[in-house]
Amino acid sequence: MHVRAAAIDALVVTHLPNIRYLTGFTGTAGAVVLLHERCILAVDFRYLTAAQDLAAARPAGTIEVEPVPQGYDLTIVDVLRRESCKRVGVEAAWLSVSRFNAISTGLAGTAPTPLRADGPTPVLVPTERLVERARMIKDAAEVAAIREGGCRISAIARRLHEVVRPGRREVDVAAELEAAMREAGFSRPAFETIVASGPNSALPHARPTDRRIAPGDSTVLDFGGVYDGYCVDLTRTVQLGRPSRELQRLYDAVAEAHQAAVAAVRPGVRPSAIDGAARGVLERAGLGEMFRHGTGHGLGLEIHEDPRIAREMPGLPDDPVEPGMVFTIEPGAYVPGTGGVRIEDDVLVTGSGCELLTDAPRVMTIDL
Amino acid sequence: MHVRAAAIDALVVTHLPNIRYLTGFTGTAGAVVLLHERCILAVDFRYLTAAQDLAAARPAGTIEVEPVPQGYDLTIVDVLRRESCKRVGVEAAWLSVSRFNAISTGLAGTAPTPLRADGPTPVLVPTERLVERARMIKDAAEVAAIREGGCRISAIARRLHEVVRPGRREVDVAAELEAAMREAGFSRPAFETIVASGPNSALPHARPTDRRIAPGDSTVLDFGGVYDGYCVDLTRTVQLGRPSRELQRLYDAVAEAHQAAVAAVRPGVRPSAIDGAARGVLERAGLGEMFRHGTGHGLGLEIHEDPRIAREMPGLPDDPVEPGMVFTIEPGAYVPGTGGVRIEDDVLVTGSGCELLTDAPRVMTIDL
Repeated sequence: MHVRAAAIDALVVTHLPNIRYLTGFTGTAGAVVLLHERCILAVDFRYLTAAQDLAAARPAGTIEVEPVPQGYDLTIVDVLRRESCKRVGVEAAWLSVSRFNAISTGLAGTAPTPLRADGPTPVLVPTERLVERARMIKDAAEVAAIREGGCRISAIARRLHEVVRPGRREVDVAAELEAAMREAGFSRPAFETIVASGPNSALPHARPTDRRIAPGDSTVLDFGGVYDGYCVDLTRTVQLGRPSRELQRLYDAVAEAHQAAVAAVRPGVRPSAIDGAARGVLERAGLGEMFRHGTGHGLGLEIHEDPRIAREMPGLPDDPVEPGMVFTIEPGAYVPGTGGVRIEDDVLVTGSGCELLTDAPRVMTIDL
Repeated sequence: MHVRAAAIDALVVTHLPNIRYLTGFTGTAGAVVLLHERCILAVDFRYLTAAQDLAAARPAGTIEVEPVPQGYDLTIVDVLRRESCKRVGVEAAWLSVSRFNAISTGLAGTAPTPLRADGPTPVLVPTERLVERARMIKDAAEVAAIREGGCRISAIARRLHEVVRPGRREVDVAAELEAAMREAGFSRPAFETIVASGPNSALPHARPTDRRIAPGDSTVLDFGGVYDGYCVDLTRTVQLGRPSRELQRLYDAVAEAHQAAVAAVRPGVRPSAIDGAARGVLERAGLGEMFRHGTGHGLGLEIHEDPRIAREMPGLPDDPVEPGMVFTIEPGAYVPGTGGVRIEDDVLVTGSGCELLTDAPRVMTIDL
């Protein structure tokens, strides 16, 4: 990890997916103090046994378990003082102002472990994306989990024509997709399933409603699951019966944009260029204004991770993609009154291009 | 709200359940600047129409909608400068160090709306639990939603003997409970459903596993749903066949502890006294060490809210309960090797005592 590079003695990790990444710990509360050569995993009594099992499975001395008797911030303070840390990084994007203040105050005041007489009071340093940057590059075991999840979600996608039927309510279709994911071995949905039909399909972030799917509708189905801890995410738009001419134009343009973006993925390309490949197709089709979100997002232990595959924006990273990165490609076009179309797959950046981790027919039309 | 009481000109509200409480807004991103007489609801393009509809439904001038073109923190800065706020509260428990720093820097530097020549730079003041304190007391509409949710979750609980059967896997029982909640009109589970059988029942926070429920098992089923935006939460322990003598002792003690805690609820009583009523029963049964969590927690828009019904702890509130508060009563006892028992209901504090919002047989034994 980057503890040395960031000119800090220790990093206090409080974001649970980052804790899981560093230690394998999957509980709902915990904290890690990451030092140069080892990490200290602090957990309360509920998770002591699980944490000790994790530590025992790693090389000796790499993970030390610290019981939390009275509250995480008190234990963090105690560990930092005991380890004589001077400059301590915190995860500024995840640590609350309250906890920052509590830990700062604890470090300055008296605590169970007295400061060494010769040591200065440790200072907290806000850091950004230290663990997240490492998480962008998936290792072999992570890729294996996502590949398996991608395979399983694709199998569900290939049966969408059995699920999308005239007269069915969006909420029922969403429930069926979530049941199918559970049946397929996913531990939970990775996000709230989107089923948006007819006029609702023109809303990129619609929630399922009681609306019944009708002939002529395009229906956007955006769903994903967590498999072995890792997220996959897929969208298909199913057309029930013949599309209007305008809707057909959306299908064609979005499919072409999707293809162009996938073709653009290879090591060394900036995310903004991948986004530009999709966006250019839609702009040339006169649909640039109808595509008001980014082309994709990284995914892994969380459903939204770095990198963001989107237009260049001041202050946001746009570093070239590298082998081992996994992200979505999901262009869409949404026209009020006409409907919406989105096509989404997950890709893994390889040495020379990319591997599609999800695979199902890009455009699905059901004849009535 | 407490804007005046806290000696601030404005409160920046970033916690989504608090935003919903203040405005009715249910999107996945938003911010509120709460002023003395009105509140400004900032949303991005996805939610503009929904926010404008909400504002139109309230008395004129109470909610103003502010579009977010470029990022929430920039808009918050712009609004605070435009409104000439001087001391601005932030929700310290929810605002990240990153966002606190971004807003502070924005207020100090140049921004689209220039500071008035005569105005000082606004300062940010950490505040704690301002909106949460108001949320503790439910109004009539909130009580109605929770009461209806409680009624529906109770109906599911009364059918638990149909769901808990020998040979069924915990994960399948959990899936069936979640399907039953959806069928009953809940929009989603309020938390990850717990189904913990046999030895797993001795773990208070177990996740469902592939273990098959066996004769003689106690099975703890802890489940809840979100109805009309409000959470309900219920636990029953189902005994399959004759319990061991030791397990029977747990059932008896936990049922008595539950009854004692419910009987202790009335306005003016401190949460620690309600906790003490349950804990005292278990201690007298020699099970004090086997009850290592609090007796209950408030619930409403979130599954865990104030008040906490637990032992008095330095630095944590223990203010007397008041009419309109809703919280769980959920004592338990967990003995490794024997199993665990928990019984949980939701109660509403009334003028003279409490109303049980959930209701199903406290102890459920299935004859084999």
